[in-house]
Amino acid sequence: MIADCREHAMTNAESKQQSKPQTAITPTRADNYAEWYQQVVRAADLAENSPVRGCMVIKPWGYAIWEHMQRVLDGMFKATGHVNAYFPIFIPVSFLEKEAAHVDGFAKECAVVTHHRLTADKNGKLIPTGELEEPLVVRPTSETIIGASFAKWVESYRDLPLLINQWANVVRWEMRTRLFLRTAEFLWQEGHTAHATADEARVETMKMLDVYADFAENFMAMPVIKGQKTEGERFPGAVDTFCIEAMMQDRKALQAGTSHFLGQNFAKASDIKFLDQSGTLQHAWTTSWGVSTRLVGALIMTHSDDDGLVLPPKLAPAHVVIMPVLHKPETAQQVMDYCQSLAKELRGLTYAGVPVRVELDTRDIRGGDKVWGWIKKGVPIRVEVGPRDMEADSVFMGRRDKGHKEKSAVKRADFLASVTAILDEIQNSLFERAKAHRAQHTQKVETKDELVRYFTPKKAGSDNEPTEIHGGFALARFAMDAAAEAKLKDDLGVTVRCIPLEGSDDPGPCVLTGKPATKRVVFAKAY
Amino acid sequence: MIADCREHAMTNAESKQQSKPQTAITPTRADNYAEWYQQVVRAADLAENSPVRGCMVIKPWGYAIWEHMQRVLDGMFKATGHVNAYFPIFIPVSFLEKEAAHVDGFAKECAVVTHHRLTADKNGKLIPTGELEEPLVVRPTSETIIGASFAKWVESYRDLPLLINQWANVVRWEMRTRLFLRTAEFLWQEGHTAHATADEARVETMKMLDVYADFAENFMAMPVIKGQKTEGERFPGAVDTFCIEAMMQDRKALQAGTSHFLGQNFAKASDIKFLDQSGTLQHAWTTSWGVSTRLVGALIMTHSDDDGLVLPPKLAPAHVVIMPVLHKPETAQQVMDYCQSLAKELRGLTYAGVPVRVELDTRDIRGGDKVWGWIKKGVPIRVEVGPRDMEADSVFMGRRDKGHKEKSAVKRADFLASVTAILDEIQNSLFERAKAHRAQHTQKVETKDELVRYFTPKKAGSDNEPTEIHGGFALARFAMDAAAEAKLKDDLGVTVRCIPLEGSDDPGPCVLTGKPATKRVVFAKAY
Repeated sequence: MIADCREHAMTNAESKQQSKPQTAITPTRADNYAEWYQQVVRAADLAENSPVRGCMVIKPWGYAIWEHMQRVLDGMFKATGHVNAYFPIFIPVSFLEKEAAHVDGFAKECAVVTHHRLTADKNGKLIPTGELEEPLVVRPTSETIIGASFAKWVESYRDLPLLINQWANVVRWEMRTRLFLRTAEFLWQEGHTAHATADEARVETMKMLDVYADFAENFMAMPVIKGQKTEGERFPGAVDTFCIEAMMQDRKALQAGTSHFLGQNFAKASDIKFLDQSGTLQHAWTTSWGVSTRLVGALIMTHSDDDGLVLPPKLAPAHVVIMPVLHKPETAQQVMDYCQSLAKELRGLTYAGVPVRVELDTRDIRGGDKVWGWIKKGVPIRVEVGPRDMEADSVFMGRRDKGHKEKSAVKRADFLASVTAILDEIQNSLFERAKAHRAQHTQKVETKDELVRYFTPKKAGSDNEPTEIHGGFALARFAMDAAAEAKLKDDLGVTVRCIPLEGSDDPGPCVLTGKPATKRVVFAKAY
Repeated sequence: MIADCREHAMTNAESKQQSKPQTAITPTRADNYAEWYQQVVRAADLAENSPVRGCMVIKPWGYAIWEHMQRVLDGMFKATGHVNAYFPIFIPVSFLEKEAAHVDGFAKECAVVTHHRLTADKNGKLIPTGELEEPLVVRPTSETIIGASFAKWVESYRDLPLLINQWANVVRWEMRTRLFLRTAEFLWQEGHTAHATADEARVETMKMLDVYADFAENFMAMPVIKGQKTEGERFPGAVDTFCIEAMMQDRKALQAGTSHFLGQNFAKASDIKFLDQSGTLQHAWTTSWGVSTRLVGALIMTHSDDDGLVLPPKLAPAHVVIMPVLHKPETAQQVMDYCQSLAKELRGLTYAGVPVRVELDTRDIRGGDKVWGWIKKGVPIRVEVGPRDMEADSVFMGRRDKGHKEKSAVKRADFLASVTAILDEIQNSLFERAKAHRAQHTQKVETKDELVRYFTPKKAGSDNEPTEIHGGFALARFAMDAAAEAKLKDDLGVTVRCIPLEGSDDPGPCVLTGKPATKRVVFAKAY
């Protein structure tokens, strides 16, 4: 692409690959999508399994993505009037029991603390002692324990609305776990609010759903459908559950966030009452809403390719990585100085409201390994600088949204002048690509037969798709028949992901039962 | 103080108080220091006890202080090369057992998870089922579980140093708890690092101690003594423990942060080994260091007064609160506009590297309650604006580091021009006041008799001190005799807080045993 590209270590690696086409990740998406996901996580050094069943270790690069997600979301929550607080990790079993549907939903898979001491027995083996009068559950979610505080805090309509968020760890004893997507312990935020009227609580529920959709689309570059859950998929104890659903590259749906209108169910369970303006004592109306480290899994599966992780710039721990080419001792210091000054200037620029984040990689390792390392870590812009680049006052740039061979020399000044625009371009190109993928694999389906065919796995058409692939999102009429929905799940592993909030009105016969239906819903296989 | 002060609601409240001197907090520090602390926490709405034994609820204003502490500390950790990660909340009992001193230190007070399900018995009562093969402990600290990861991550000297920090909740089953100061669950950060040499690990240990001292003094405005712990006060499993110790207003010491040199103890327990440059397999050298929500307690007890919380501006959730005086309908809108424009201009200013944080309090409550509410919450600068202030293009300002009656009219432009300097002044005045208090109550003590007298409670000299007060910090020679130290603790409730890193060399007879000693240490009663 340019004359002096031979000085870049990458070129050697590339030329070797000319004969035998390779990808950084084995297997590819087409070969084995599930295993590809694990390998992307591993290659980008995002997380790993721990010796504790079902719990993951979030490694620094993975945690940095989560930190950026937190920072943005926290700003959005505060901008919508919420404040953070912190509630106990333990929930007495009697609290969980206060809401019948809730305890049914969570009792089956929870970590139970029964003792508060370990004592050595005769053989020196440590055994639990100091049995608690009442067992405690490690919070799977905090409606009941936060409800106990709300009941104390709320007396009059003047105390409402109460708009609280908590950043915390939660535990649900999952049997089959998968890094980020489903783990026994995960990190999340849980919003909990109380209001004087049902209307206000409903407005809050939808407002936070909008915040999640905004975050997913404009920061994660991940298109989502906002919708309502059917009865069977509701949060245990909620009156209505709303969600954002995204399509992964294997065309499965991933629920990326939920917002629940809890009605007065939890207010009654926790006795959250207030005197209204007319002096009448009423139960409050509450909501809860959450997103978790699962979003990191969604991010990976939406954008990554057969060379590894691809990160949307707005959430990337580094926007630009600079790799000085230092193998010639006589120019090493000069090249290093050149790169340091470049890093400094970049850090002085602002992208999406924050200073540009720069990694300067001076590790003494093979250039090819270094470049591939950053490709696999998904950094949006890579810059290599060797002596000749320096002499030409230029940098050798590659973009993670393009092929790894598409690199070019850019004058230093031009690079600095265009870098934030390039980051915007990458952010947009990822979003557009994800939208196109979803559009391509979303289809109206009119009959049961067609639905069955749509979700029957078949060989993929192109070579970067999983070998066994199904249709994607089917938009089909549904008469909200819980039994038919359950049977579909058993037969095909397909569920109603949501009833879209927009554009779903379309009366006609239900695709499953033929009964009159008023809306088209999203049917899909899901994570 | 100024002509038009009658329009401020505060004045009425004050004039009532002329006859009967009152404070916002009952009891005062002099009456009952321990209860005063609880009441300051309550009046500022910082935290409360939860229905779960020993666990606290951190309320929004208290959590906001912690968030600002986190933001500053996190920046300091990153600036010194550390990255964040996240490790499991559960620790298998067998991991805890790997380090003998460590398990001794933590087994006596830990939350033990023994089951992973709740099932209803015949009477419908939920009982723990699904017993775990190996019980899990809710982390009291994470050396052993993080060690398991480090053992996987470290192979060669090239992988070192490993510089990791974790923000997390931990649980220690304390029997006697006190909001922020000692709770069963608390929030903290724990740094964990691994190094190729003992020297490097020692440098890290001291570097993080310096970071903590810098944070305590320059952000919390709380003077600290950096020192080393005696053997009896060391972290279980550490070779050396270093700490920062602060003096509270009741002259008791509070350990505000610790940094441990762990030698190879935990590397051996967790098998963290690396190939050094000569190809020899060696155990790594590790450190750990932490501060917790206890710092919020330290902040409260260092600066607050009989009117409630006093916050150093650098950590205050709000720097300035603006209270429009709106009871005249004909001017209400104008006053509100004036205040909103003032808030906007203030938010455009920068203090200590961040935009000035402003609360605009438009609640429809009594002016006096409003003003007292913000005094009790410790906001550094209060501004009241009524119609006459607005006409004079001025604001009516009070500072939290001055008496609540010392308020004055300031021209709007002058206020805007001086506000960040005033915040600096307050930050400094709090630090100077705390330093003076410590200096006043620190004394060299030469004999055992003198030491006993120093720590014998007596009536306080001034009326804003606890009735039962002891000397404070005694600087006395100590020959590091563990038995004598233990006896002193039993007899007087006094411990060696630390061996100061600076200025402690002063050979002579030990204050307790008369044996030759080389250093003066800090003796004190402690939280």
